[in-house]
Amino acid sequence: MTAVFGHLNPDTDAITAALVYAHLLSRQGTPAQAYRLGELNFETAFVLEQAGVDAPPLLSELPAGSEVALVDHNESAQSVAGLKNLTVTHVVDHHKLGDLETSQPAVLRFEPVGCTATILMRLHREAGLSIDATDARLLLSAVLSDTLHFRSPTTTAADREAAAFLAPIAGVTDVTAYAMQMFAAKSDLGDTPAEKLLKMDYKVFPFGAGKWGLGVIETTNPGYVFGRQAELLVAMQAEKAASGLDGVLLSVVDILNETNRTLVPSDAEAAVVQAAFGASTEAQVADLQKRISRKKQIVPALEAYFAAHA
Amino acid sequence: MTAVFGHLNPDTDAITAALVYAHLLSRQGTPAQAYRLGELNFETAFVLEQAGVDAPPLLSELPAGSEVALVDHNESAQSVAGLKNLTVTHVVDHHKLGDLETSQPAVLRFEPVGCTATILMRLHREAGLSIDATDARLLLSAVLSDTLHFRSPTTTAADREAAAFLAPIAGVTDVTAYAMQMFAAKSDLGDTPAEKLLKMDYKVFPFGAGKWGLGVIETTNPGYVFGRQAELLVAMQAEKAASGLDGVLLSVVDILNETNRTLVPSDAEAAVVQAAFGASTEAQVADLQKRISRKKQIVPALEAYFAAHA
Ligand SMILES: [Mn+2]
Ligand SMILES: [Mn+2]
Repeated sequence: MTAVFGHLNPDTDAITAALVYAHLLSRQGTPAQAYRLGELNFETAFVLEQAGVDAPPLLSELPAGSEVALVDHNESAQSVAGLKNLTVTHVVDHHKLGDLETSQPAVLRFEPVGCTATILMRLHREAGLSIDATDARLLLSAVLSDTLHFRSPTTTAADREAAAFLAPIAGVTDVTAYAMQMFAAKSDLGDTPAEKLLKMDYKVFPFGAGKWGLGVIETTNPGYVFGRQAELLVAMQAEKAASGLDGVLLSVVDILNETNRTLVPSDAEAAVVQAAFGASTEAQVADLQKRISRKKQIVPALEAYFAAHA
Repeated sequence: MTAVFGHLNPDTDAITAALVYAHLLSRQGTPAQAYRLGELNFETAFVLEQAGVDAPPLLSELPAGSEVALVDHNESAQSVAGLKNLTVTHVVDHHKLGDLETSQPAVLRFEPVGCTATILMRLHREAGLSIDATDARLLLSAVLSDTLHFRSPTTTAADREAAAFLAPIAGVTDVTAYAMQMFAAKSDLGDTPAEKLLKMDYKVFPFGAGKWGLGVIETTNPGYVFGRQAELLVAMQAEKAASGLDGVLLSVVDILNETNRTLVPSDAEAAVVQAAFGASTEAQVADLQKRISRKKQIVPALEAYFAAHA
């Protein structure tokens, strides 16, 4: 049985891709089981509830040599513990290729599109396999989530085409209304502890000789997040110290207005933000304007800054 | 213009895949030019002559940042010098994934099939693009070459299916006769210097703490190769010393009888061959019997031996 899973701190694409790819592999003769590497976020919980699908089981560890299929990630830092001792037989992803190696020839399917779901839609089409209403809803949700309903600069024509193909199969007649429901669910953060808010969509990147933690909160209600600014800054400082990071940033992305105001815990990060983005920090907030994609706008600018200042 | 190329010491799959993928990318809106990273072997020269196609230009270096598409390989040790400074935008390959990383999301298409050509045939089919007679002949030749006319254990059903699909388009009515012509061309080694014979199909592998060089000569005329055994053993010893290797082996694969008799330059290699394959060395030749695939049979056995004796 091949274990299929997305990245740590799973988002909607990571969870739905695991579910749908496990189903596809099983239909193609490779028995597979979907797992998750962390708690569902509020958006993903809403999506699964709407689809009538249970969350996949939580995976913490696998015996050495187990066959695994990775979706929506490929770097060991974002994957299950001990990945190097597992046998990666399949990868479906839309990120740049990191430190992955395979011990034998494998199926790798990477495309520079907005979400894993778009690639999965193509895999069905190429195999001449239909997509049922449940899988279509899961995939559509992932497209809307990863592209912020086509607002993100990571969006490609293939993602729009996938959504247009999937919506009628999923029985979603008003895609805009459904996307708004998803984003409202995601923004309903309640009394989530500040440490959890920071880690909801959080990745650590090697920059220069050091490491930075970059969190993103995509929300239709930025006022809620800034109402908890003091707590969040404390959580960021604590994480920076506990994990020996050189910098931590938390970008609060206003989905509907497509703006990014980023929390900056200390002068060290403020200096880098000034140099990399030309943005000054006032009262520990830097206005990064229309830069709403960590992958396409935040990380490349920081990489370029550290490459030039190595 | 994207530069498309296969591995160093190119074989038929490496050359034809570069030509056909460059053509496909260009048709799909990405202008591309095929290159080769070394001299054509005798088989490939025959294939191109039969197809009426010129050899692609020899590539030695590219400006940093150039966009490149890799076919039939992915490891930097088998690729163009300075690969780390180039932008890899596409990879089509059937080998295990090595040290490749990409600086941005790319198109990666790896499948565990017998040759790159089989994947390229699928890419055309998925894109709804026809394959012209010339490209079909190039792809068919690569399938026959990499699978030794379906004799190699790397052969999959997909490779057989690809050949059956391509042969009529290529106008090759007797596939067996054409394969025999290819293998005869490959076996007509004339007065090729021994150092060149060793390096015709040669790769260096990290085993344990050291490195081994593994050459293969696939031939319908093993008698010719063993007639030059003394020279070849001298060339192997010289290469071992010059490149600081821990071992060198040269497998002489009798294509038609599907046997492998391997030249063993010293007692050090003989001891490993005895332990890894249970094969004794007599007069500097070890009978490795039906192990005709370096990728699937020779390398894994040596890897297992060195892993157990690390
Ligand atoms: Mn994704
Ligand atoms: Mn090949």
